[in-house]
Amino acid sequence: MATEISTLGEFGLIKRLTDNIQPQNAETLYGIGDDCAVLKYDDKDILVTTDLLMEGVHFDLTYMPMKHLGYKAAQVNLSDIYAMGGTPKQLTISLALSKRFSVEDMEDFYEGLKLACEKHHVDIVGGDTTSSRTGLAISITAIGEAEKGRAIYRNGAKDTDLICVSGDLGAAYMGFQLLEREKEVYYQQINTAKTDAERLAISQPDFSGREYLLERQMKPEARRDIILRLREAGIQPTAMMDISDGLSSELLHICTQSHCGCRIYEERIPIDYQTAVMAEELNMSLTTAALNGGEDYELLFTVPLADHEKVEQLEDIKLIGHITKESLGCALITRDGAEFQLKAQGWNSLK
Amino acid sequence: MATEISTLGEFGLIKRLTDNIQPQNAETLYGIGDDCAVLKYDDKDILVTTDLLMEGVHFDLTYMPMKHLGYKAAQVNLSDIYAMGGTPKQLTISLALSKRFSVEDMEDFYEGLKLACEKHHVDIVGGDTTSSRTGLAISITAIGEAEKGRAIYRNGAKDTDLICVSGDLGAAYMGFQLLEREKEVYYQQINTAKTDAERLAISQPDFSGREYLLERQMKPEARRDIILRLREAGIQPTAMMDISDGLSSELLHICTQSHCGCRIYEERIPIDYQTAVMAEELNMSLTTAALNGGEDYELLFTVPLADHEKVEQLEDIKLIGHITKESLGCALITRDGAEFQLKAQGWNSLK
Repeated sequence: MATEISTLGEFGLIKRLTDNIQPQNAETLYGIGDDCAVLKYDDKDILVTTDLLMEGVHFDLTYMPMKHLGYKAAQVNLSDIYAMGGTPKQLTISLALSKRFSVEDMEDFYEGLKLACEKHHVDIVGGDTTSSRTGLAISITAIGEAEKGRAIYRNGAKDTDLICVSGDLGAAYMGFQLLEREKEVYYQQINTAKTDAERLAISQPDFSGREYLLERQMKPEARRDIILRLREAGIQPTAMMDISDGLSSELLHICTQSHCGCRIYEERIPIDYQTAVMAEELNMSLTTAALNGGEDYELLFTVPLADHEKVEQLEDIKLIGHITKESLGCALITRDGAEFQLKAQGWNSLK
Repeated sequence: MATEISTLGEFGLIKRLTDNIQPQNAETLYGIGDDCAVLKYDDKDILVTTDLLMEGVHFDLTYMPMKHLGYKAAQVNLSDIYAMGGTPKQLTISLALSKRFSVEDMEDFYEGLKLACEKHHVDIVGGDTTSSRTGLAISITAIGEAEKGRAIYRNGAKDTDLICVSGDLGAAYMGFQLLEREKEVYYQQINTAKTDAERLAISQPDFSGREYLLERQMKPEARRDIILRLREAGIQPTAMMDISDGLSSELLHICTQSHCGCRIYEERIPIDYQTAVMAEELNMSLTTAALNGGEDYELLFTVPLADHEKVEQLEDIKLIGHITKESLGCALITRDGAEFQLKAQGWNSLK
C-alpha cells in the first residue's frame, strides 16, 4: 500500500496523522489545531529544546524503518529535557517530505513518534507538515518543566565533584558501523548478481548476537528512569548533559562551561560485551568508540563528593572519574596509568 | 568574501553567529548554550508555534537575500503568536545548510533574524545548526505569553460577530508574481545572450512604483501594533488567526472550527493601489489574489456586534463582513450582489 500524499493534501494528511491525538497532561491547555499550542506551567521553570534532522546526514532510510525514525527523533529530543533534570511534557513535530514518501510512510513515522511520547507521557501539541524538493527533514521541539531553580546546567561542576555516566557507551556507534558494513555487502551483492536467481539468493544479514547494538542505534531510550532515580535518592547533580556527540566532547563542554578540568579512568567507562566484540571484529579501538562514538543518549553528570555513597548504590550508574581544577586540564587515565588529553573528536556534521 | 563553513565547524559557526546574543526578557532565565533554554512564565498561558521552511518550496534564493530571509522567517512565526492575541518572547532557530552556503551567508541570515527579534523584543534562546545534502532548511519555534484564559482561538466566532482584517491583502502575492516574472525575463536574457557585451547589457529589473509589493513579499511585518491597539481599545476578539494561506482559506478555518457560516463583501476587502495595478497588468482577478494569495501575515478576527463602533474607529482595521449561522454556509458577496461560496484555494505545498 502506498497512497500518494497529494490525494490528501496538507490538511487531509495532518488530519489523518493527528486525528486521534488527545492531550493528556494538565500542562497542555490546547494542542493541535490553532496558530499556537497553549500551555500552562504553574510555578515551574520551562525547558525548551529543538533539533533538526536531515535525511542523508542524520539518518539513512536504507536501513532505518520510518517507525523507528519517528521513535528515535522523539527520544533524542526528550533526552535533552532529562539532561536538564527536567520532565518533558509536550512536543511539536514538523516534517518536510519529498514526493517519494507515501501516506503510509508518514503513518509509520507517527506510530513510532506516538509510541515514544506515550512512554514518556508527552503530548504532541503541534507542528507543520510541508513538502521538500529532496529527502525528508524532521524538526522537533520538546518542552518540559523543572522545579523552580532546579534545572541542571552544564556550568555547575566543581573541583572534586564525581563524574558519573548512565548505561554503557559506544554501542550505538558500533550498531551504526555494523549497519553500514551490511549495507555495503548488500549493495556489492546486488551489483555483482547477474541473474534473478543470483539476486534472490542474496542473503539477509544475520544480526544474531548483535541485537543490542542495533537496538542502541535504532531505538535509543531517553533516560527518564535515571532522573527519577536521582530524585528519589535526593541527589541534585551539579552539572549534567546527555551524550549525543560522544563522552569526550560532552565532558569538555561541561569542563569548559564550569571552568574546571577532569580525570576519567579508561577502565571505568561502562561498555557492553557486544560493543567490545564488535570493536575487536572491526579492528577498532574500543575506548575511542566509547569516547567519541556518540548517539548513546546516556546521561553524563557530576555530583558533590559527599554524594559518593549514595550514587554508588544507584543501579545503572557508573562513577568514571572526578572534576579537577581548571589548570589540570581534561585527561583520560588509561589502564596502564598513562594520561591522555581529551579531545572533542565526536560527530560534527559541519566538518 | 565567502568563508567556508568547514573552516569553523559546527561549534565555531554557532559561536560566531550567537556570541553577541544576550537575553533581554525577564521570561528568559537561560538562552543559548545548554541542552535546553530555561524560561519562566509566572501566571501566564504559554503559546508555542513552529514552522519548517524549505528552499525551493517556501523561498527562492535567486531573489531573496539571506538577510531578508532571516527577517521573514522570524516574522512569520511571531505572527502566529500575535494571532492568538499573545506577546512573543523567545524564538529558537535551526538551520540545515548545504556546502554552497558560506559563513557570511549565515551572518546575513542572522542579521535579518536579529533585526526582526529586536523589533518585537524577542530573545533568540537556542537552536541547532547542521548540514543538509541539498539546499537550506529553516525551522523556527516561537514562544510567547497570553494573559491567563485570554488566548484567542479559531473556534470562538459567534453568529452576528463582525469579521475584521488588518492592513491590506494580496500585495505579497503580487510581489511574488512580479519577482517570478522578472526572474523569467532575466534567465531568458542570460540564455539568449551570445557575447560578454550582450550579457553586460542585460538590464536589472525596474521595480519603481512596485516597492510596496516587493516589501510585502520580502519583508512582512507581524502585526504587533494591531494587538496592542485592540488591547488599548479593550476589544477581546472572539476568534483570530493570521492570514498566511489566504483570506478565504483562513476564514473557512474559523467558520469550520466555530461551527458557523459567514458573509464577506468583495467591496470591503482592503486592497492597495499597487496591488490593483499589478493585477490588471498581469490580467489576474484582483479579488482572487486578495482571497487566495496568501503570505499577507495580516490578522483576521471576529468581534462581538456590540464592539462595532469601537472597532470602526481603529486605524488600519477594516470590517469586511459578519458571521452567520452554520447552515448559511460561507460566501462572498460581489460588488453586483451575487453570492459565491468561499473555497480554500490558497497555497498548499502538498497538493
